[in-house]
Amino acid sequence: MNVIPPALARLIAELGKLPGIGRKSATRLALHLLRRPPLEAQGLARSLAELHQLITLCSTCYAFSEQDPCEICRNPGRDEALVCVVEEPGDLLAIEKTASFKGKYHILHGVLSPMDGIGPKELKIGLLQERIRRDAVREVLVATSSTVPGEATAAYLYRHLREQCPAVRVTRLAYGIPMGMDIKYADELTLAKAIETRREQP
Amino acid sequence: MNVIPPALARLIAELGKLPGIGRKSATRLALHLLRRPPLEAQGLARSLAELHQLITLCSTCYAFSEQDPCEICRNPGRDEALVCVVEEPGDLLAIEKTASFKGKYHILHGVLSPMDGIGPKELKIGLLQERIRRDAVREVLVATSSTVPGEATAAYLYRHLREQCPAVRVTRLAYGIPMGMDIKYADELTLAKAIETRREQP
Repeated sequence: MNVIPPALARLIAELGKLPGIGRKSATRLALHLLRRPPLEAQGLARSLAELHQLITLCSTCYAFSEQDPCEICRNPGRDEALVCVVEEPGDLLAIEKTASFKGKYHILHGVLSPMDGIGPKELKIGLLQERIRRDAVREVLVATSSTVPGEATAAYLYRHLREQCPAVRVTRLAYGIPMGMDIKYADELTLAKAIETRREQP
Repeated sequence: MNVIPPALARLIAELGKLPGIGRKSATRLALHLLRRPPLEAQGLARSLAELHQLITLCSTCYAFSEQDPCEICRNPGRDEALVCVVEEPGDLLAIEKTASFKGKYHILHGVLSPMDGIGPKELKIGLLQERIRRDAVREVLVATSSTVPGEATAAYLYRHLREQCPAVRVTRLAYGIPMGMDIKYADELTLAKAIETRREQP
């Protein structure tokens, strides 16, 4: 005999599909929603139902947007000659939060991963190249993660753009000690990178 | 300028209302759902929308159920003379998982908390008393948490039932060292409790 009512069990199963939410957390969340006024579950249900209806991909930069082109691509105040390449839409949000990047974006929606069948075509690198020519892009800032696949993607982009668009400057985010971090707590790889890429005191 | 599309921002806000999910996790979950096929978000939306429509409280034990009385209260194989009092529906699920309790339940949906205006009436203790008389309950097992409010509620129940239903046996879950735990890692309070309530070797 199962003591979990079927409607509750279904919600637990659906919540449990979310990343980082196991069966225990899913049960806790479902019971929480059940205890709260129905409006809360319904509000969440509505936002979920309309999510894919309202949001599409910008056909220029592949950001999630309700309009095409997206707000950043339409903004004449942003420098279209400077394109930042990121892996995921979440990376774009992180960079926007810093308010220190005034160019446009290209979202790969992944990294090169031949094992999973993800090649340059899946990452729309051809379209990035077209944009470089069309918009007279001067600099491509590669902001992929400093993980093995992120670095491999950055290396591929660097080689590929060197060949196909030799005029464009290809840059990479700086890696080193995080701001405010005590050097004795930095991991060895980061510290080694920071020594290797040391710069003149400004 | 906000770079998060409004529909995505609404979903992030709704997800962020869930306990233990901050703005960062909510953003991660929303972006995950956006990347997945629309069916996933819609499945979750459906389960949320139907949650309060299908599930009510059992009018006997106050468990969440799609029928009234609930499956446990309707089950003739469960001993109605043994009632386990728990704080929350999640506690019932935890006890059911052990498969070692064959009685019925009374769910308080909270603990005594005079500061928040939660008294014996809010916890339906009057109805528990009625049930004790009607079903000739022989034992009430108080399984509230061993927290300050949980213990206060247990103490209140003990005194109250002693007075109102002197024939009923009021028991409490045993507290002590968790099974499989090394004694040197047990916290002092638990170890002290385990010494104080030591039993004859069976």
